[in-house]
Amino acid sequence: MRTVDSLHLRLLRLLRDHGAISRAELADQLEAPRPRLLAELDRLVGLGYVAEAGLAASRGGRRSTLVELNPGLRFAAVDLGASSIDVEVVNGRLEPVAAYAESADIRSGPKVTLQRVSELLHKARVDGAYERLAAVGIGVPGPVSFRDGVPVSPPIMPGWDRFPVRELLTREHGCPAVVDNDVNVMAIGERHGGVARSVNDFMLVKIGTGIGCGIYLDGEVYRGKDGCAGDIGHIQVELNGPMCSCGNLGCLEALFGGAALAREATVAARSGASPALAERLAAAGTVAACDVALAAAEGDITCIQLIRDGGRRVGRVLAGMVSFANPSMIVIGGGLAQLGHILLAEIRSVVYRRSLPLATGNLPVVLSELGLRAGVAGAAVLASDVAFEQAS
Amino acid sequence: MRTVDSLHLRLLRLLRDHGAISRAELADQLEAPRPRLLAELDRLVGLGYVAEAGLAASRGGRRSTLVELNPGLRFAAVDLGASSIDVEVVNGRLEPVAAYAESADIRSGPKVTLQRVSELLHKARVDGAYERLAAVGIGVPGPVSFRDGVPVSPPIMPGWDRFPVRELLTREHGCPAVVDNDVNVMAIGERHGGVARSVNDFMLVKIGTGIGCGIYLDGEVYRGKDGCAGDIGHIQVELNGPMCSCGNLGCLEALFGGAALAREATVAARSGASPALAERLAAAGTVAACDVALAAAEGDITCIQLIRDGGRRVGRVLAGMVSFANPSMIVIGGGLAQLGHILLAEIRSVVYRRSLPLATGNLPVVLSELGLRAGVAGAAVLASDVAFEQAS
Repeated sequence: MRTVDSLHLRLLRLLRDHGAISRAELADQLEAPRPRLLAELDRLVGLGYVAEAGLAASRGGRRSTLVELNPGLRFAAVDLGASSIDVEVVNGRLEPVAAYAESADIRSGPKVTLQRVSELLHKARVDGAYERLAAVGIGVPGPVSFRDGVPVSPPIMPGWDRFPVRELLTREHGCPAVVDNDVNVMAIGERHGGVARSVNDFMLVKIGTGIGCGIYLDGEVYRGKDGCAGDIGHIQVELNGPMCSCGNLGCLEALFGGAALAREATVAARSGASPALAERLAAAGTVAACDVALAAAEGDITCIQLIRDGGRRVGRVLAGMVSFANPSMIVIGGGLAQLGHILLAEIRSVVYRRSLPLATGNLPVVLSELGLRAGVAGAAVLASDVAFEQAS
Repeated sequence: MRTVDSLHLRLLRLLRDHGAISRAELADQLEAPRPRLLAELDRLVGLGYVAEAGLAASRGGRRSTLVELNPGLRFAAVDLGASSIDVEVVNGRLEPVAAYAESADIRSGPKVTLQRVSELLHKARVDGAYERLAAVGIGVPGPVSFRDGVPVSPPIMPGWDRFPVRELLTREHGCPAVVDNDVNVMAIGERHGGVARSVNDFMLVKIGTGIGCGIYLDGEVYRGKDGCAGDIGHIQVELNGPMCSCGNLGCLEALFGGAALAREATVAARSGASPALAERLAAAGTVAACDVALAAAEGDITCIQLIRDGGRRVGRVLAGMVSFANPSMIVIGGGLAQLGHILLAEIRSVVYRRSLPLATGNLPVVLSELGLRAGVAGAAVLASDVAFEQAS
């Protein structure tokens, strides 16, 4: 049994998602009694969340004044990957006003990594992107206790287990902070401003260094009992497949994560099975997953086969998830989503063939719209939500 | 965003689940203002849902009167299996006052089957089990549009597709009716009065003629976009396994449903691999899944192996579901759950080994408590809920 969202939350979200709006229209859209709404607006202006924005176009009678989110409102959105840091400062409409991206190894631990995040945010302030932050949202590549704001037993993040990420960010930046799993924040991003806009039940599948899945059910992120729902990278797809970093055999991730694909690409380059990869290996000394995509686009048969094999394995796991969850949409994102339509075609073919026809009759399987920005976009949504909640 | 349940619904459910209670305690438990509660009670007495039940024990001051659900309140609960009809008439506390069970082939179609249900309910009335029904709840072995009250493309129910089950029952019995999938009603039963009492996120896995899964998320049944969530019987467990009734190869159900187990048992009996089954085949002319359970209990190695093989396959599918959904509990039910602890041990072993440690650290995998009564018990809960909702 959940409670209905309160007026101030609905009001602030409406201003975030629709921009400046007249008081009259606000009252209509929120179906709130006008006196209560006006009192609430006054309160939020006082708190610095809302500002006047001139007069609305006439609707016949006296012209209503427009209100909008305070133009000085700023949120920080952070997306930590296994090997990258993406930081954005966004305004109240969640439009980026500053963005930084750099390589970083999550295994260097929370102190080093979060120190670097703080330095980037400091730089943003010096660059004039903000005076003060209303909230920070951050996604990390591992399971998270959303309630406690800490990573929980994250397999690829040594030193991060139960590290007080939220507490540290709150203290550092003097504002509320919110921590979630990287795949969940991508799903939140796609639902707010991407391909899953207004879809209530969908799965976002991230195929990158790791493989994971963000789950929306009934319009809310589903995190499971321990915050690790969606961990599909460790579902077994080959009984006697290669050993995975988790210690089991034949996990999806061990067969088609970024590392697995790079390994297979190196084999194909060395053996000469793929002339295109052999050329790249000779030129650069190494081949990566993205080289497979480029070579496949040029028609290299071995690379096309590698992508199709991987797509088939992802498809088999997703077919099971579709039978289990009967979602409205599947969104494919993450670095390897750039393998593009060969990958998508193979995933679709297996999902449509292997799931119950009733579940796939009207099931779009599509590529992410926000691409590599999905993570920061979702972190920004989370940050704004936590700031708005605290405006009560 | 869901609305909070209304007072009359909470009140009626409390009387259903806790029995007679004083007005004073009711006001405490429901945290409702006393005048509003008393008015609501008067209204529900007028409608025939609630009745006075004498005086409560003294709490010091004036003795409060007890109220309870009207002792004449009756619901019908129906559980249709592939080859069985179970009907109960229950009182407001959902205690059975009449019960009937018989064999029936769901493939004889909706008219014949529902006619038989009506005859059983007619018999119950003649036997004095009720004067009139407040609602009928029914579970059917296939996907259901819960909103429309009709089966949707049910694979093993020819002639039932979009048949107006709810409408027919409502017309026939002059009361609201509610239709759901048979596995969902089992999950509802276990949550209301079985092993999953008060567990908000769990999966009930039915292993019987078919294999399916009822899903509770955040305290509510999760049905998916088309009402077919939980259809795990058609997840592939062997790439080149036997052909399933759904047309695909190697589905879980094709390898370990009741029919598959009976087929393997027959082979083991004929080949002499299982002396116990051979004896049963000679005596009865046929062997069924339950014979495997009996022979295994007597120590027949082949039968123990058959159950372990099946349990391992179920476990592999469930391990994937645990990684995906991170539930709080898994309940194993249905006819083959009577294969008992050999089956359970094998399922547990695979789930605990193959899922993320974080997800299984505190994950009970247990047998159903209500056993074969889970279906009717859940149908009774659904019936009472729909009757209570209409008391507004």
